[in-house]
Formats: sequence, structure tokens, C-alpha cells
Amino acid sequence: MLKAEEKTQQVSLTAFDLSLGIQTSFDAEILASGEFTLPAKLLGDIVAKLPPGDLTLEVDQEDKDGEIATLTASSGRYEIRGIGAEEFPELPMVEDGKTLSLSIESLGDGLKGSLFATSPDETKQVLTGVHLTLLTDCLEFAATDGHRLAVVRTDSPEDTLGEAEPIELTIPARALRELEKLLFLLQGSKSATESIELYFDTTQIVFQGGEHRLTTRTLEGMYPSYRKLIPQQFQRTVTIDRKLLMTSVERIAVLADQKNNIVKFNLDSENQLLSLAVEAADVGSGCESISAQISGEDLEIGFNVKYLLEGLKALQSSEVQIQLNTNLSPVIITPLGGDQITYLIMPVQIRK
Amino acid sequence: MLKAEEKTQQVSLTAFDLSLGIQTSFDAEILASGEFTLPAKLLGDIVAKLPPGDLTLEVDQEDKDGEIATLTASSGRYEIRGIGAEEFPELPMVEDGKTLSLSIESLGDGLKGSLFATSPDETKQVLTGVHLTLLTDCLEFAATDGHRLAVVRTDSPEDTLGEAEPIELTIPARALRELEKLLFLLQGSKSATESIELYFDTTQIVFQGGEHRLTTRTLEGMYPSYRKLIPQQFQRTVTIDRKLLMTSVERIAVLADQKNNIVKFNLDSENQLLSLAVEAADVGSGCESISAQISGEDLEIGFNVKYLLEGLKALQSSEVQIQLNTNLSPVIITPLGGDQITYLIMPVQIRK
Repeated sequence: MLKAEEKTQQVSLTAFDLSLGIQTSFDAEILASGEFTLPAKLLGDIVAKLPPGDLTLEVDQEDKDGEIATLTASSGRYEIRGIGAEEFPELPMVEDGKTLSLSIESLGDGLKGSLFATSPDETKQVLTGVHLTLLTDCLEFAATDGHRLAVVRTDSPEDTLGEAEPIELTIPARALRELEKLLFLLQGSKSATESIELYFDTTQIVFQGGEHRLTTRTLEGMYPSYRKLIPQQFQRTVTIDRKLLMTSVERIAVLADQKNNIVKFNLDSENQLLSLAVEAADVGSGCESISAQISGEDLEIGFNVKYLLEGLKALQSSEVQIQLNTNLSPVIITPLGGDQITYLIMPVQIRK
Repeated sequence: MLKAEEKTQQVSLTAFDLSLGIQTSFDAEILASGEFTLPAKLLGDIVAKLPPGDLTLEVDQEDKDGEIATLTASSGRYEIRGIGAEEFPELPMVEDGKTLSLSIESLGDGLKGSLFATSPDETKQVLTGVHLTLLTDCLEFAATDGHRLAVVRTDSPEDTLGEAEPIELTIPARALRELEKLLFLLQGSKSATESIELYFDTTQIVFQGGEHRLTTRTLEGMYPSYRKLIPQQFQRTVTIDRKLLMTSVERIAVLADQKNNIVKFNLDSENQLLSLAVEAADVGSGCESISAQISGEDLEIGFNVKYLLEGLKALQSSEVQIQLNTNLSPVIITPLGGDQITYLIMPVQIRK
């Protein structure tokens, strides 16, 4: 829906699928107020291909068909059939909810470190979202698909309203991916917007950044109590260059069995070497070794290549620490220095 | 199939699917001669991901399983299961055929101007290939899918053997697309190879360029006699900037009906304007005008957007000449200056 206001000389664009809504506005020369809805993809495709320069949009509401918008640019003249704005639903607002203000950077870090670990399976309900918890000294983002878990802690919000009850929300990943694009846009533009305001109640959340607004339903249901899954003590620790490990896993993954997609780690503390091995029946096998700082007894442990790689990509530090107990208990990967990310991955049992 | 020859210190790689075959060779340090076949994609994937540096390939033919190749690089050690080379078919050779030598540039120009117009429909037999004819003073490449026709004339081959009978061949587009990649490789490398040798008889053609060889079956069957389709006289001519026309068609094509995908040209000789219009029922419409040199009476004529755009992309001159008779007869588009390309497109009847 396009809405032009003569008084403010602003155009606002709104898109809404009844779950996720996005609204943005910008300055324009408005000769007469009005509103109208147009097919979004078609309008976007045409405008993207126009040569640089001004364009004029006119809707003749006196027309007996009444439903044609005329777009005039230096290159030519285009007519697009739309419908009146009367039936376009209002974007939901949060009236008596709570408010938080987050820096674009904190919000971006929280999303980057968690979004990838959400479940793509729509039947998994709350697991398709990122769970946000406001703790006393930080904001925590958590995501899990049942096989791995990513937890990010970022700086405390700027204006915590000192709520008595803890704030917890689960937000659909689909909406947060759009929010990531919006943050990217705000960081790239020369706008003075440095923070995002969050308005929310138990069913709805609105993100407002400058002239941009994103609103989404929250996901209902209890989020798993993931904190108790994270071990506090470890028998073994590996400190290793993140990129070396990542490229090595990527390389030998070519030879991993397509079916179970396992890479085997061998911790060799005497030689301070981490060996990686893969094997695909009837196809081949591969092994590589990387020097690492290893403490604790030697161990052979298997991981799913995909979950391992996605975590290593998200961490973004130059070195990572891998903390382990046995080859059947959860493993924690954390970046050395930098962001506060905890990535938990369950090992895969290796059949002999 | 990998073949290592101790005497020449060369490795050759051969791939062949019984219709299309490609062979290439390069220098290597060979400790013992031998040959072996390995899964092509797997080998390519691993080698592409290896860090720069030498790699060693060993096949232990005394092994009782006898079928494992071991690849050792600085990053690690990889084993790939293959099979012996005994069953690998020989690449077909042309023994008593004819020979031509073509410059890489001529061959490249011929392919670029014709390949896109071949039919992707495998049931269309000869139309899935490019038809090559050796005329007295040039080599002609032709391709048509029944809706449009592209004809390119390039320089005469370097060594024409003065054959009495004309040489005509139809070569599968699939093989020629691989040949294009090979030409690109040869142009990019510092090799001294400047020409491609063609060896052919009625069923098989071999392209040899430096250390690279590509061999393919030819397509059997009569190629349509396309030359008589090209009109020699025209009632109307439009000379126009190619890029302006192309971007204009691309832009308004967004509003063209998805079903018949027609753009309508209007020749206005009084104002020296070419107007383009599209219309999609229930969606919208668009029109643009471009100044052009127009001779002949005004005309309204429709084209399929896809065929028009593909032709305009292939021509690559700054201006093109469009030659027309009526709105039902074939239209010719040619580049002004540069390559000798004739692009014929059939107009689409416009229903009122």
C-alpha cells in the first residue's frame, strides 16, 4: 500500500501478510494526498529497471474503472492495475506493551550468531524462532533445532524499564531475516539512526528504526530450557585456528559419506595435533592434521559436518576453543575474544 | 581416465560419454607410467579445494583390491576408489577425413553469434546443432529453432584443402558449448596456440587446440535450407542504438503478458521515433519511445520479447539495423559495422 500525505510531503509503503508487516516512508513532492495498493513484485521490478531520475505516480480516482496507477519516468509511461486501499489491513500496534532500545550493532550480532541455528521445519513451532531473554546485565539470543544450540549474549539494552518479571519472547526467524536486511540498510545509509526501538507484548513485537518499522507475531509455546544443557565443566579443551579448521572440514567433507555426513576428530595431546578423518564406503576417504593446543586425554569423536561448519562460520574470531567431555556428551565451541557466543553441538556416534 | 607417461613426463586426462569426448594433457613429474580411472566430479571437487602446491597421486596396482588412488597434498592425504583403465573406451579418431584450420577468434565469433539460436528440444534433431558450411570465401555458422535464425560469416579457414564438394556439417550445441569454454581457456592462457585444427568426416569431428582435444559425433539429417528464408529486399529500415533498444525492451517486458510475451513496435517515420508498447490484460501496460533513423512507411509489428532480446544481446555492435517488409514477413536485424551476423526473427501476429 502506497500512502501519500500532502501535509507531511511523505510517501509511506506498507506490506503485510497478516503475520509479518513492514512499513517504510520517505520524502516526496506530494501534490494531493491519497492511498492505493499495487502488486508489489511488479512495481518493484519496473522501478528497479528505470533509468536514474524522478518519477511521477498518478492515480485518477475519478476514473470509472478507478484502479489504474500511471507511472511516468524519463524512459516512458507505465500503467499498473491495483485496488483501492480501503481493504488493506492496519499494521498491528503494541499499545500497552513494554519497550526496549537496542543498538543496531548489538541486535545485528545477536541475530548473526543465532538465526542460522533455528529449525527450518515449520512443524517445530517455537524452534523456528529465536528466543530473546532480558537478563539483569545482558540480552540473550538463543536458537536450537534440536541438534545444536547457539546462544549469544550482547550488551544490555539502553533503556531497561526495570521490570520485575523477566522478559522472554520467541520471534519467528522469517521476520528476523527481514530485520537483518533492514539493519544492513540502516548501517549502510548515512541516516543518524543508531538504535532500534522494540515495542512488545506477549503476542506481537514491533521493531522501529528511523523511518522503518517491522512488526511480527511472536511464537506461542514454552521455549526449551536450554541453559541446563550447557555443561559447566570439561575434561578436554582444544584451542585452534578457526579458518584452518573450517577449510580443512570443508575440504575433507567432499569425501564424507553423503548419508551420514560425519567427520571424525582425533585429539592427540602428546603431539598437540587435531586429526580429521572422513570415510565414505565404496568411494574413498581422507585425513588431515592441524596443530592445536590440546589439554586432557586423547579422544575420538564424530560430528555432523553441516552443524560443525555452520557454527565455525558464525563465530568469526581468529581462534576458537572447543570444550569436550566424552564422545557422547555435548561439545561447546566458543570464540576466543570478541563476541560472547556459545555454540553447543551433539557428537554423532561412530559405528565401527 | 588419467594416463601418466614416464617417457614424455606428461599426464593426460580423458573424459568420454560415447558422444562427446574431451582430452587434455600437461607436464608432471612421472616416476612410473600407468593409467587409471577415477570419479570425475569427486576428483575435481577435492583438487579444487586443495591449498596451492604440488600434489602426488599414487596407484598401488599390486594391492589385492587394486583400485585405490592415493592423493597426497600439503593439507592431508585422500584416497579415492576408482577402476582400472582397461574398460575405458578409446576416443574416436578421424582417420581419412578432411582438415581445416581456424583462428580461435573466428571460431569464437561464429559460436557466440549462433549457438544461442539452437533448439534446446532434443526431439528437434539437427536443430539442436550449429550448421557449418565452408563457402568459397568464408565459413558460415547457422542456427535456428524454427522461430528465429542466426547466420554468422567469419574469415575463411587458413588452410582450405580446395575440396571440390562443399563441406557441410551439423555439430551438437552441447559439444560446442564445451568448445567455447576451451576457446576461452586458450585465449586466457599464455599458450602460443592461436588456431584450432578441425578433423572430420560425415559422422565425427575432432577439434584440436594445443594440448586440448574435443571430439563429438555430428548430427545426421538434412539441415533446413535457411538461406532462401532471408529476404533480399526490404520496404522499411530502422537504424537504432542497440543498448537503448535492449534496455527499453527489458524494462517494458516486465509488463508484457506472461502468456504470449509480445512487445509491439510502432515505426513513426515522420517523427523518426520507434515506439514500444506492451500490454498484459488485468495487470497493466507500458510504452516507451526511442529516436531512430526510419525509412519507409509507418508500421505496427509484434515480436516475441525473448527472441528479440537474445538477438540484440548477440549482435554486440553499438548500432543495429532492422529491416522489415510487412508485419507478417520475416524481419532481419544486423549489426552496423563489426561482425557479419544476420539475425532473422518472425513477427508475431497482434490480435486486436
